[in-house]
Amino acid sequence: MNPLHPFDEASRLTRRDDGVLVGRTSPAYWNFAGPFGGVTGAIMLRAVLEDPAREGTPVTMTVNFAGLVGEGEFELVPNLTRGGRTTQHWSVELRQRGQVLGTASFVFAKRVETWTHQPATMPQVPPPESIEPMDTTRWMAWLQSYEFRFVSGAPVLSRSIHDPLRGQRSVLWVSDRKPRPLDWLSLAAMSDAFFPRVLHARGVNAKMGTVSLSTYFHCDQEELEAQGAAPLLGVADGDRYSRNFQDQRMQLWGRDGRLLAVGTQMLWYDR
Amino acid sequence: MNPLHPFDEASRLTRRDDGVLVGRTSPAYWNFAGPFGGVTGAIMLRAVLEDPAREGTPVTMTVNFAGLVGEGEFELVPNLTRGGRTTQHWSVELRQRGQVLGTASFVFAKRVETWTHQPATMPQVPPPESIEPMDTTRWMAWLQSYEFRFVSGAPVLSRSIHDPLRGQRSVLWVSDRKPRPLDWLSLAAMSDAFFPRVLHARGVNAKMGTVSLSTYFHCDQEELEAQGAAPLLGVADGDRYSRNFQDQRMQLWGRDGRLLAVGTQMLWYDR
Repeated sequence: MNPLHPFDEASRLTRRDDGVLVGRTSPAYWNFAGPFGGVTGAIMLRAVLEDPAREGTPVTMTVNFAGLVGEGEFELVPNLTRGGRTTQHWSVELRQRGQVLGTASFVFAKRVETWTHQPATMPQVPPPESIEPMDTTRWMAWLQSYEFRFVSGAPVLSRSIHDPLRGQRSVLWVSDRKPRPLDWLSLAAMSDAFFPRVLHARGVNAKMGTVSLSTYFHCDQEELEAQGAAPLLGVADGDRYSRNFQDQRMQLWGRDGRLLAVGTQMLWYDR
Repeated sequence: MNPLHPFDEASRLTRRDDGVLVGRTSPAYWNFAGPFGGVTGAIMLRAVLEDPAREGTPVTMTVNFAGLVGEGEFELVPNLTRGGRTTQHWSVELRQRGQVLGTASFVFAKRVETWTHQPATMPQVPPPESIEPMDTTRWMAWLQSYEFRFVSGAPVLSRSIHDPLRGQRSVLWVSDRKPRPLDWLSLAAMSDAFFPRVLHARGVNAKMGTVSLSTYFHCDQEELEAQGAAPLLGVADGDRYSRNFQDQRMQLWGRDGRLLAVGTQMLWYDR
């Protein structure tokens, strides 16, 4: 039998007798001082996706990161805030050692065919096969669990604080290093798989971390599954850095030119 | 004594003996079939801003609209999810007649001076004084509580479904019709004061409404207060409309070229 993909291992949940869901941090997706936030978001999404009361597919996800999750087990408590005929609102709390370390809210919907229009256009870029993945072998574990093929705006680190600023916009192909067909969970995780823009602009390794992440899902089940394990094209940019916080927004495109998800996040940085 | 500004009236809260906060819908900010969501967001923000345990200024706000608020009183229950040395996480539930009709989450922070950078640039546009406000006298009440001075991308409604599509990007000056100095509450409300992009692109009046709204605050107290009652420049755009849902993002600029807030929302439309 094949072993579980590291991402499935990292997002695995078990249900305790009292109904609480239990997850466990994974070394394969470890960041500086806690798990990669994208996997934390994915596992909170999973808590809803696998709930017997869940109907429809994810439309929005907002995750607020309230504290660092430590190594080991944590608990998830999903709650159907309001259920309608076509739309459901869910909230999920993540707790560890009695403390709330994260909250998430989700809108799910039974989507139907309507008028459709995509004014955004996918950047014209070379195919992923023509670009070498960035060497992340000496970096944090989670960066080694993905392949990042930068078309433009690759990070240039270890610059001096006196060096000129660089642009903060990146265009890159992103994929699981060990191929895995795209699903809602990996799409949710990839929506957070962009480096902090402050790092791109400044190149200086200040302390930083996401405080709030919102992802909007545009694809339906069929479009999602049509992606297979092919890399997605990510576009990330940001508008302002001021007094400890920066915003950044992202798009994730399928190779077929469909915009699968868009999102935004606010990050804290220390100086 | 001067009467309360309609916005202060609409966002007024009273504290019941059991600690629950009570608000009341306002005719001045009525939308099609419920209150303007921006005011709902503002009043949820107010519940936190006026809480004795609140520290710092708002950094992020996410509001999920779970059901239509009816005319009359509603209850707000703020909850400090997690408080840290410099950052607080809050959640607020909005209830009416025993049902949860909205949830919101906020990150507050005691922000300090850090490295600062604003790569986004304000569009070069004519001053608000040179543009006539859109005539909203026959429209929903909340549209009459604001002045919208379109630089580009004004909505062209009542088109046929067979007419060609238009662009969905808008640039406009927005202000309270009755002048009122900008504060966190009005900035939060204005972050939702953009028409659905689907209306701009399509010009057809399908049913539509915001399901989730996220606003990130870049300004500090001083920058905020420096705006006075001057109009803010809003920029709104959207990427994709598909299967009942569209995303849109916005920027709100001060006249001084400071980016005060950015945000994004997901809207439902019916056909």
